[in-house]
Amino acid sequence: MGGDGGPDLTVSASLEALRKAPELALVLVGDESQIAPLLTHADQGLASRCTLHHSDQMVSDQDKPGNVLRSARRSSMYQAAELVKNDSVQAMVSAGNTGALLMIGRHLLKTLDGIQKPALVAALPGASRQTLLLDVGANPVCDAQQLFEFAVMGSVLAESLHGSPARVGLLNIGAENYKGTIEVRHAADLLERCKALNYVGFIEANELFDGLADVIVCDGFVGNVTIKSSAGVANVVAQLLEEELRKISAVDDMRLPATVRRLSAKINPQRFNGASLLGLQGSIVKSHGNATAEGFAYAIAQAVAEVENAVPQLIAKRVAAIITAS
Amino acid sequence: MGGDGGPDLTVSASLEALRKAPELALVLVGDESQIAPLLTHADQGLASRCTLHHSDQMVSDQDKPGNVLRSARRSSMYQAAELVKNDSVQAMVSAGNTGALLMIGRHLLKTLDGIQKPALVAALPGASRQTLLLDVGANPVCDAQQLFEFAVMGSVLAESLHGSPARVGLLNIGAENYKGTIEVRHAADLLERCKALNYVGFIEANELFDGLADVIVCDGFVGNVTIKSSAGVANVVAQLLEEELRKISAVDDMRLPATVRRLSAKINPQRFNGASLLGLQGSIVKSHGNATAEGFAYAIAQAVAEVENAVPQLIAKRVAAIITAS
Repeated sequence: MGGDGGPDLTVSASLEALRKAPELALVLVGDESQIAPLLTHADQGLASRCTLHHSDQMVSDQDKPGNVLRSARRSSMYQAAELVKNDSVQAMVSAGNTGALLMIGRHLLKTLDGIQKPALVAALPGASRQTLLLDVGANPVCDAQQLFEFAVMGSVLAESLHGSPARVGLLNIGAENYKGTIEVRHAADLLERCKALNYVGFIEANELFDGLADVIVCDGFVGNVTIKSSAGVANVVAQLLEEELRKISAVDDMRLPATVRRLSAKINPQRFNGASLLGLQGSIVKSHGNATAEGFAYAIAQAVAEVENAVPQLIAKRVAAIITAS
Repeated sequence: MGGDGGPDLTVSASLEALRKAPELALVLVGDESQIAPLLTHADQGLASRCTLHHSDQMVSDQDKPGNVLRSARRSSMYQAAELVKNDSVQAMVSAGNTGALLMIGRHLLKTLDGIQKPALVAALPGASRQTLLLDVGANPVCDAQQLFEFAVMGSVLAESLHGSPARVGLLNIGAENYKGTIEVRHAADLLERCKALNYVGFIEANELFDGLADVIVCDGFVGNVTIKSSAGVANVVAQLLEEELRKISAVDDMRLPATVRRLSAKINPQRFNGASLLGLQGSIVKSHGNATAEGFAYAIAQAVAEVENAVPQLIAKRVAAIITAS
């Protein structure tokens, strides 16, 4: 029900995700009167892999996260998280209110042993292979131990996605060890001492896209600003590019539109939609509220990948191993 | 002497700045044996407007800021700041060690009455007119009062550059008043209560380039990450653009190279080089260490604009007025 596009968009994205993942089945949680007609008019082969779970309430962007546990138990968001908790589904995806999703996720799914707080992890567009950044908004203020835990969780996700050991960096405002906040410097000490992680040191924000690390750790305020400002710059450049290219008529060279399409596809923020909430006993993926159907389908694909790789279970195992070793 | 290009680059930028500003005179502080030959081979009309101030020591990027006050008094950086302090020059520009520059600047020039700490301010490339962001690295941790002072200083600079009242925003990770850190929320209260500022509320990082505010305030960690990640994205996009355009031979359409040049000029990070250190009793402008000669010349132009607009004096006046009113 969430996101700027509502069920029209999420249902269309769901059908697209089903088309791409033949073994996927979806439970659509929300207002039956809005969702059922959309399925009736869809490809029935795909629609038959959807189950409708009716909910007559929804969390809006205006709802204060602090209130949802009391007042929004019948909401589609709460109901979907309960399906994860009861093992009726293996993961949930939502484009709704982030704060409310965090609150409901933590309340129903609980954090894994050894993890204080879950973190949102997003993929940064990288030159060679994807770089994961966390936290991107769940924890505006973090201590060193939390940053360390983010490194562990991010490593597990990166390794399960890439199939090779993950290099972990710490986002800082300089390379020298006296730079940055006390929390970041203390987290660096913890990471340097941990043999189970491949810590590569401080990463400055201008190096985020250089592929120096597979996982980059920061607090949720910094991470949120980083992904949003990056998207902002990419939009500005895309607009400027379009303006400039419109000045030279595209029909002059038929290869030009294809060039622009290829470039747009590479910097397309929709491709990087889908922030996993790591550290819970279950998988939750947050889609941008303003994602397109294409973007929302990527968020669903992210949830599928996490389930296939058993990410929460792997994190639990790794955390236990690190705690035992230290 | 500072920056990746050394005197070769800074002298060439100096000559370029002199060419553009006919009333400008420069004192070049550094190693005479390196600088004098560069001036000998330059246009003598421009070179005659340079005075050489010899210094046989320099602060390197490896020097710890905490040590420079004791050990680097003969350095070009320290000597240049002394020239500002003694009113021998009206502003200084450096591409050297940022931490050392902050330390020396604060030690020699002192902060203005009513300002706790100076802040580095940088211009964000904006759609319509420039947006200033501060702090971008001088203060990794800030309390609400500091953020408020940054708003005052940024407003004065923006108004002196644009000649019209400045809209001030606070960088946050959401629009709702319960979002963000305690410091940011408290700063919002201070800004809302201050009638002398035109406070427009929270700005999210994806809106940084939308021209919603003329001044955007954040702590130095967040600001540093913001400008560096923005530059990182712009570089990635520029590289991708170049790769794609190389695939379609530029000679096919002679207008294509001009298009790319116009686009590059618009997103050129060198144009936005030059971060002013605001809040001191004198003007100091920091250039990126990796700025080109063109970029360093922009940093000099930024110093010229601050002197012409008497920015430190205006800040002192505005701060005094706000303190009196509150």
